[in-house]
Amino acid sequence: MPDDLAPPHDTPAAVHAPELSKRLAAEAIGSAFLLIAVIGSGIMAQTLSPNDVGLQLLENAAATTGALIALIIMFATVSGAHFNPAVTLVERLLGSMTSRDAGAYVAAQLVGGCLGTMSANAMFSEQTGRGIVFISQRDRNSGAELLAEVVATIGLLLVIHGAVRHAKPHVVGVAVGVWIGGAYFFTSSTSFANPMVSVARTLSDSFAGIAPSSAPGFIAAQLVGAVLAWLLIRWIFAPQTR
Amino acid sequence: MPDDLAPPHDTPAAVHAPELSKRLAAEAIGSAFLLIAVIGSGIMAQTLSPNDVGLQLLENAAATTGALIALIIMFATVSGAHFNPAVTLVERLLGSMTSRDAGAYVAAQLVGGCLGTMSANAMFSEQTGRGIVFISQRDRNSGAELLAEVVATIGLLLVIHGAVRHAKPHVVGVAVGVWIGGAYFFTSSTSFANPMVSVARTLSDSFAGIAPSSAPGFIAAQLVGAVLAWLLIRWIFAPQTR
Amino acid sequence: MPDDLAPPHDTPAAVHAPELSKRLAAEAIGSAFLLIAVIGSGIMAQTLSPNDVGLQLLENAAATTGALIALIIMFATVSGAHFNPAVTLVERLLGSMTSRDAGAYVAAQLVGGCLGTMSANAMFSEQTGRGIVFISQRDRNSGAELLAEVVATIGLLLVIHGAVRHAKPHVVGVAVGVWIGGAYFFTSSTSFANPMVSVARTLSDSFAGIAPSSAPGFIAAQLVGAVLAWLLIRWIFAPQTR
Amino acid sequence: MPDDLAPPHDTPAAVHAPELSKRLAAEAIGSAFLLIAVIGSGIMAQTLSPNDVGLQLLENAAATTGALIALIIMFATVSGAHFNPAVTLVERLLGSMTSRDAGAYVAAQLVGGCLGTMSANAMFSEQTGRGIVFISQRDRNSGAELLAEVVATIGLLLVIHGAVRHAKPHVVGVAVGVWIGGAYFFTSSTSFANPMVSVARTLSDSFAGIAPSSAPGFIAAQLVGAVLAWLLIRWIFAPQTR
Repeated sequence: MPDDLAPPHDTPAAVHAPELSKRLAAEAIGSAFLLIAVIGSGIMAQTLSPNDVGLQLLENAAATTGALIALIIMFATVSGAHFNPAVTLVERLLGSMTSRDAGAYVAAQLVGGCLGTMSANAMFSEQTGRGIVFISQRDRNSGAELLAEVVATIGLLLVIHGAVRHAKPHVVGVAVGVWIGGAYFFTSSTSFANPMVSVARTLSDSFAGIAPSSAPGFIAAQLVGAVLAWLLIRWIFAPQTR
Repeated sequence: MPDDLAPPHDTPAAVHAPELSKRLAAEAIGSAFLLIAVIGSGIMAQTLSPNDVGLQLLENAAATTGALIALIIMFATVSGAHFNPAVTLVERLLGSMTSRDAGAYVAAQLVGGCLGTMSANAMFSEQTGRGIVFISQRDRNSGAELLAEVVATIGLLLVIHGAVRHAKPHVVGVAVGVWIGGAYFFTSSTSFANPMVSVARTLSDSFAGIAPSSAPGFIAAQLVGAVLAWLLIRWIFAPQTR
Repeated sequence: MPDDLAPPHDTPAAVHAPELSKRLAAEAIGSAFLLIAVIGSGIMAQTLSPNDVGLQLLENAAATTGALIALIIMFATVSGAHFNPAVTLVERLLGSMTSRDAGAYVAAQLVGGCLGTMSANAMFSEQTGRGIVFISQRDRNSGAELLAEVVATIGLLLVIHGAVRHAKPHVVGVAVGVWIGGAYFFTSSTSFANPMVSVARTLSDSFAGIAPSSAPGFIAAQLVGAVLAWLLIRWIFAPQTR
Repeated sequence: MPDDLAPPHDTPAAVHAPELSKRLAAEAIGSAFLLIAVIGSGIMAQTLSPNDVGLQLLENAAATTGALIALIIMFATVSGAHFNPAVTLVERLLGSMTSRDAGAYVAAQLVGGCLGTMSANAMFSEQTGRGIVFISQRDRNSGAELLAEVVATIGLLLVIHGAVRHAKPHVVGVAVGVWIGGAYFFTSSTSFANPMVSVARTLSDSFAGIAPSSAPGFIAAQLVGAVLAWLLIRWIFAPQTR
C-alpha cells in the first residue's frame, strides 16, 4: 500500500499521541469496561427479564451502546479507543501504527478484557451464584453465525473509517455505539465483531458467553472481515485522484 | 427551477465529490447494510419476542435507527449517503446532480438493497428455515397505509433538507436515524418512505416484508411524497430575498 | 426587563430570519408532524402492546423523542422550531420577538397541531375504527398532574435556554427530544408541557388524548410554568456583570 | 499535584464562570431535576410495567439518560453541571476550584436533590398512596454492590474527564447520560455513583430507593472510587511531556 494513503486514516489523537504506556493503559481500561458492560448487562437482563429473550437482548444492546459511546469519547484522544484487535490490525495494515505498537495494543486489550469479564462475574456473583472465573458452555459455530461475523466486522470497520473522516472523535463514538447496538439484532451472531471480545466472553457462562471451542471460528471470521474491510477502505476512502 | 436555488442544497460531500465508481459503491454497500439491518432485526425480533408485536417493532426500530445513523455517517462524505431513490430524485429536481448520475445512483441502490435482503436471509436461515430468496406474502395496500407513505416521505425529505443546512453530515445521520425509528411507530405503514426498500423488502417473507403486489402502490405514494416535498423544500428552505 | 438581556437568548436562526410566511409554515408543519408523532405512536403502541402500559409509554416516548430531535433540526434555522406557545411566550417576554409575530406563531402552531391530530386519526383509522375527528374522554385533572405540568414546563424551558447558549441548533434538538422522552416517565402527567399540544390532543380518543374539560387546567399550569421559567432564565442565564 | 496539571481539566464554563450564586442555583436546580427523573420514572415504571422488573429498569434508565443529557447541556456553561459531590471532589483535588466553592457546591446539590425527591413524591402521590417524605426500606449493602459502586464511580469520572477534553459541553452531556443509562444494567448496584443521590434516594420508598442504613456504605465506596479515579485521571490525561 502506498505511503500516501495513510494520513487520511489518522485519528485526531494520532497527531499528538501520548506516551505508549498511557495509550496501553487506555486500551486495557477501556476493554475492561467494555466487557463489564457486555457481560454485566447480559447477566442483569437475564435475571430481571426472564420471560422474553428479545427484551433481554434489547437491554443488553442498549447498555452496550451507552458504554461504547462513552468509552470511545473517554479515550479517543489518548489511544484512539480501539478496544478491538481487528481495529488495530486495520490501522497497522493502513500504516498508521507500527507492528510493535499494534502488538502491544492487542496484548493490553486482551488483558483488560479478561479482567473486565472477571470483574463483571464478581459484581454479579449473587445473581449467578458462581465465582469470578468460569467457562462458557454456549456453542456459537453455525455457518450462518460465521457469515454474520464476517459481515459484522466489515460493517464495524467501515463505520469507524467513515466516521473518522469527520475529524470529531465523539462522532466516531456515537456511530460505533449505535451501530453495534443495532447489530446485536441485525446479525444472527449478535455481532461480536471483535477477537478480544470473543476471547474474554469465553470466561462467562451467561447469556453473553461463548464456548472456548467456538471462539477460534469467530476470530477467524472476524480477521477475514477485517482484511476485506481493509481492501474496501483503502479504495473507497482513498483521497481522490482527479 | 432557477439555477441559483441549487447551491444551498449541496451537501458538504458534493464540494469534493469522489469518482462516480466510489460513490456508486458507497450507495450499493450502504443500501445493502440498510436492508440487512431492516430485515435481519425484523427476523431476530420476531424470533426472540414472539409474544408482543409492539416490542418486536421497538427492537426493529431501534436497530434500524442505529444502522441508519452509522451508515449515513459512514458514507456522507463519499456519496451523500442517499440509499433512497426518493432522496436522489429530489437532488435531481433541485439541480444538484445530473440525470445520468441520478440514474446510476438508483440502480446501485436497487442492486445493493436486494443483495442486502439476500444476505439477511442467509444469515438468518436457521431462524426462518428458508433459503436466500423468497417472496413476501404480506399485503400492505390500504388507503391509510398509502396516505402514511406520502406523509412519511414528505417528513423524511424535510428532515434531510433541514438537517443538511447545518452543514454537518453527522447531524443529518442522527436526524434521519431517529426520525425513521420514530416513524416506524407514528405512521401506520411503519414508514418505508423509500422505493428501493419497497422493492428489496419483497424478497423477505418476514415481519418486515411486503408482497410484490403491494410494492407499486407504496412506490407511487413515495414518489408523490417526494414531489410534494420538493415543492415545499424549494420554497421554505430557499435563500431569503430581503 | 432591560433590552440588553435579549441578545444572548437569540437563536442562530434569528440572525438571518426568513420571511414571516416561511417561519409560520415551518411552525405549522412542525407542529403537525409533532402531533402525528405523539398521537400516531400512541395508537400504534396501544394496538401492538396491549398487555403492558409501561411498554406502550416507552414506545410512545421513543417515537416522540425521535420526532422532536428531527423536527427541531429540520426547522431550527427557519423559525427557531418553537412548536409550543409556552416557548413563544418566553421569547416574547425576553424581547426577542414582537407581539405580532408571537401571536402569529401561536396561531400557526394551533392550526398545524390540530391538522396533525386529524392526519394521525386518518392514518390509523383502521386501528381505531373511527373517523378523522373525535373527542377525547380521558380526564387528566388531579392536583398532582397540574403540579407535574408546572414542573415539566419549567424544565423544558430551562433545557431550551441552556441548550441555545451552545449556539448549535442540533444540540437544542437533541436536548429537547431526550428531555421530553424522559419526562413522559418522570412526570405524572407524562409531560405535555405545551398548550398547543394540550388543545390538539383533545381531538384524539387514544392513549395520548386529553378530555376538553381537562385542557384549560393543563394550559394554565403550563403558562404558570412558563412565567416561572422566564424569571429563572432572565436571572440565571443573564450575562455576568463582573 | 503540580499546579500545571489543572488547566486541561477546566471545563469551558470555568473560563467565564458566572457569579457563585448562579452556579449554586444551577447545581441545586439540576440536582432537583435529576432526582425527579430518577425517582419519578422509577415510580412510573413500577406502576405501569408491574410484570417485568427488567422492563422497569429499562424505562428508568432511558428516562434518566434523557434527563442527564438535557440537564448537563442546560447548566454546563453556568456551573459545570456537576450535580454530584464525587465530581466536585475530583475538581477540587485537581485544583480547578477552591475548597469554599466545592463545599458550597455539595451543600447546594444535597438541598436540591432532597427537594427533588420530595417533588417526585408529591407528583406521584396518587400512584404510591403516600406523602411527600418517607424513608426507603430497600437494603443495598452486599459486598458485590459496594464493589459495583467503586467501579461505577471510577467509570463515571473517567467518562467526564475524557469527554471534557473534547471541549464541547454537549459531548459531556451525551457521554455521561448514555454511560449512566447503560450502567443501570451493567453494575449490580444499578450505578448510583453519586453521594448526593445516595442521600436523596433514602427519601423514597420506591423501586429507586435505598435504606438509610445502606447509604453510608454506598457513599464510602463512591469516595474510594473518586480518589482512585483522580489518581488515574491525573496520570492518563496529563499533558504529555515529550
